[in-house]
Amino acid sequence: MTAEAHDISRAFRDEHGWEILAEFASLLRIPNVTGEIDDLRRNAAAIKTLFEDRGASIEVVELQGASPVLVGELRTADATATVGVYVHYDGQPVDQSRWRVGPFDATLMSGPIHAGAAEVAYPDSATEIDPEWRIYARGASDDKTPLAALAAALDALVMAGRERSIDLVFLFEGEEESGSPNLDRYMTELAPRLEADLWLLCDGPVHQSRLPQVAFGARGYSGFDLTFYGPERELHSGHYGNWVPNPAMELAQFLATCKDSAGAVTIPGFYDDTWPMSDADRSAIDALPPVEETLQEELGFAGPELEGASYSDRLMRPSFNVRGLAAAAVGSEGRNVIPSEATASVDMRLAAGDDPTTMLRRVVAHLGAAGYVVLEADPTPEQRRAHRRLARLTPSPGYRAVRIPMDSDVARLLLEACGRASGMEVVALPTFGGSIPLYLFEDLLKAPVAVLPIANHDNNQHAPDENVRVANLWYGIDLWATLLTTDFSAVRRS
Amino acid sequence: MTAEAHDISRAFRDEHGWEILAEFASLLRIPNVTGEIDDLRRNAAAIKTLFEDRGASIEVVELQGASPVLVGELRTADATATVGVYVHYDGQPVDQSRWRVGPFDATLMSGPIHAGAAEVAYPDSATEIDPEWRIYARGASDDKTPLAALAAALDALVMAGRERSIDLVFLFEGEEESGSPNLDRYMTELAPRLEADLWLLCDGPVHQSRLPQVAFGARGYSGFDLTFYGPERELHSGHYGNWVPNPAMELAQFLATCKDSAGAVTIPGFYDDTWPMSDADRSAIDALPPVEETLQEELGFAGPELEGASYSDRLMRPSFNVRGLAAAAVGSEGRNVIPSEATASVDMRLAAGDDPTTMLRRVVAHLGAAGYVVLEADPTPEQRRAHRRLARLTPSPGYRAVRIPMDSDVARLLLEACGRASGMEVVALPTFGGSIPLYLFEDLLKAPVAVLPIANHDNNQHAPDENVRVANLWYGIDLWATLLTTDFSAVRRS
Repeated sequence: MTAEAHDISRAFRDEHGWEILAEFASLLRIPNVTGEIDDLRRNAAAIKTLFEDRGASIEVVELQGASPVLVGELRTADATATVGVYVHYDGQPVDQSRWRVGPFDATLMSGPIHAGAAEVAYPDSATEIDPEWRIYARGASDDKTPLAALAAALDALVMAGRERSIDLVFLFEGEEESGSPNLDRYMTELAPRLEADLWLLCDGPVHQSRLPQVAFGARGYSGFDLTFYGPERELHSGHYGNWVPNPAMELAQFLATCKDSAGAVTIPGFYDDTWPMSDADRSAIDALPPVEETLQEELGFAGPELEGASYSDRLMRPSFNVRGLAAAAVGSEGRNVIPSEATASVDMRLAAGDDPTTMLRRVVAHLGAAGYVVLEADPTPEQRRAHRRLARLTPSPGYRAVRIPMDSDVARLLLEACGRASGMEVVALPTFGGSIPLYLFEDLLKAPVAVLPIANHDNNQHAPDENVRVANLWYGIDLWATLLTTDFSAVRRS
Repeated sequence: MTAEAHDISRAFRDEHGWEILAEFASLLRIPNVTGEIDDLRRNAAAIKTLFEDRGASIEVVELQGASPVLVGELRTADATATVGVYVHYDGQPVDQSRWRVGPFDATLMSGPIHAGAAEVAYPDSATEIDPEWRIYARGASDDKTPLAALAAALDALVMAGRERSIDLVFLFEGEEESGSPNLDRYMTELAPRLEADLWLLCDGPVHQSRLPQVAFGARGYSGFDLTFYGPERELHSGHYGNWVPNPAMELAQFLATCKDSAGAVTIPGFYDDTWPMSDADRSAIDALPPVEETLQEELGFAGPELEGASYSDRLMRPSFNVRGLAAAAVGSEGRNVIPSEATASVDMRLAAGDDPTTMLRRVVAHLGAAGYVVLEADPTPEQRRAHRRLARLTPSPGYRAVRIPMDSDVARLLLEACGRASGMEVVALPTFGGSIPLYLFEDLLKAPVAVLPIANHDNNQHAPDENVRVANLWYGIDLWATLLTTDFSAVRRS
């Protein structure tokens, strides 16, 4: 009887785990802040080498004004289907002062840093590796983990002499954290080299219960920075306070009209286009392990925004999140002034059915109804003197949500593979809470797409002290070893 | 006939204006950010020399943990009364990136920098000085101008052989911009050396109409930083947005309950203790030159917070001003997170009758009514998990407002002196909008106190590009020459 793929990969990482960690750490030490093009090019070059070393044919393509993508393939004899693998190698900006370790040092820790874990030396061939160790770095979980996991799984199968069952095509992007502004151009241009029966992404975390999960969709994204204007320059608040309009107070007043105290967005029409929940959705959600109490304890808060709300229910709806506020200064830097302007940064996560442009239009209409003249640039001196209520709305690039049927062959094969790889129950999630530009795979590559997360849920994605738990990297390797040897002929489309 | 004091001072500054500007500039080049004790000591030493050079006896006194004060006197034969002079030599913090000139370079400009003025070389004895020139520096208007004006006025009288009519006592403070936390200790300790029939302050700007003014009071101060708490660390807004509470949105919602859209503060009891406006107040206010349209044009906004509100009316009431907001980040630094905390910094200007502690208590009660547990420190992990709504309120030191009768001898003499010095109509202001700890003069020094501003109203006090117009410095010199030769026997108290 042939060995199971996950047994092959386990044996491989028992022996070579220290080398896997070392190779991953060297990738994480290349800074990857989105928009930093020189750093991103260095990442692309390193990733090209990583997969060429595993026999793939891979090319770095760079369109004018865009961060490079990697496109490539790794074929096999008698492939049952072609599976596309999408990964993004850029990461969110880092505020170094708020990290407890260097964001690009790839520090290995004995556990969660916020729980007082100590630094651990990288292992050598004689060291036993504790799966509760964590590697801290921007990109450790979001989204360099799948690169390391796939590379190690390929090594494991080769070492064991085991044939792969699928052809792979690759698309690795370098500006997902900037909203993927050029992914459509890349996909359009490279479409002939990206033909696949199914695309897989490994972005985002596994379920909060630590069970593996497959997400059959992801929310879309729309967002904006909104600036209100007061006097042309900061004014002494004693001499002018409460006569001259205060943009910080007016911004607070406007934001308060966007959401009620029960957590419902009150921008007219906000929920109008969201698909109603189907019976299948309802059943899937009801089958999800309850996570609320554990999450509250882990994340450090006393109760949800909307009292009694189910976590998974909330992901089926669009969200309105104030991700930042700024006006003049607070604390020891505070000055007794009327601020000259005040800004809120907002992200909206879109549910299936919501259109990003329509959502922004509703915000603009809501501003208009509150008496604001909405500009796309800073106001001129004349505009400041002509309009009592002035706002600047700067939209972020957005995209719609995607969901695929949970009773399809794709779904069945993926859930089975995750189950074999992990030996655990698998969570079937109707939609992922985070945003991924899945619509491009549907529209431009004409293929279904699903998300198989690898990283731990407490990975501090997008925040200081991002990390990946070693046990999750190990799961990623076992998962890829399993996928690479799975018969995907049921989803073959031609 | 004896020459008028203001003619003496005019002749003096016609000849020595270039030396006055040079001496003032050297004082402004000593950084004076409040709280920076070493810099403040250098200022104190320089000011001591400035007045010792004019024959004053002056001492630097420094209490433990406080910024130094200067205390001193300059007596004359046959003085009609003793006048105390209070000045503060510290300035607000500077955000250098937002200044168009170095905040401690004392750059001389041909006019207002925001209107495109060019730098001007400091004059020599042969240069004609344009009174529309401005000196840019932190402290140029708030509050080093009176030091330069008084020193030059003393020189002018000595040069002309003119006797002074009053004894002077001095109290120069170095932490007014930190809320004068030790002024009471200093006044209590130094009271025997601070006996005077009347205290004068020259803080704040002249009237917006550019007419000279006397303020018969100033508003008090109370303020606080208010922080709301969300999850223990920033969370990915896609995975957790609109399930985990967002402290930025909740802060906006709370602030919106503090003020209505017409600009009325809606914290229960906020206006309860404010003295009602008397007929005399009403008449004084009605006699003030209208400034609203000019101010809107100059300050760059289209209309007041409360439509149709009179500027001077608003100063008779307490204010609630959001001086700063902060949560995570906005703009290019923005991250897709639920902020872990959000802070608003608020200053309240108190009208006569309001008590600073009571006002803070009303804010705390309003937070309590909204369901917040109010702490004085950051919450513990246990508190975060126990209370759905947590706030930290950090109060700033505050004090009450002061007003003195407008039909007193003090008022008459000061209005007459300003009129003679300027040759203009004088604005009689029932209260100044800014906050000055006048109550200490009443309570600890048992003397009436009035405010005679010197600086131009568009001086960017507390903001980047603070400046003083040379014409205003000239007025300050003429004012002090006049005050020093005025018969103040009508206000003599012993």
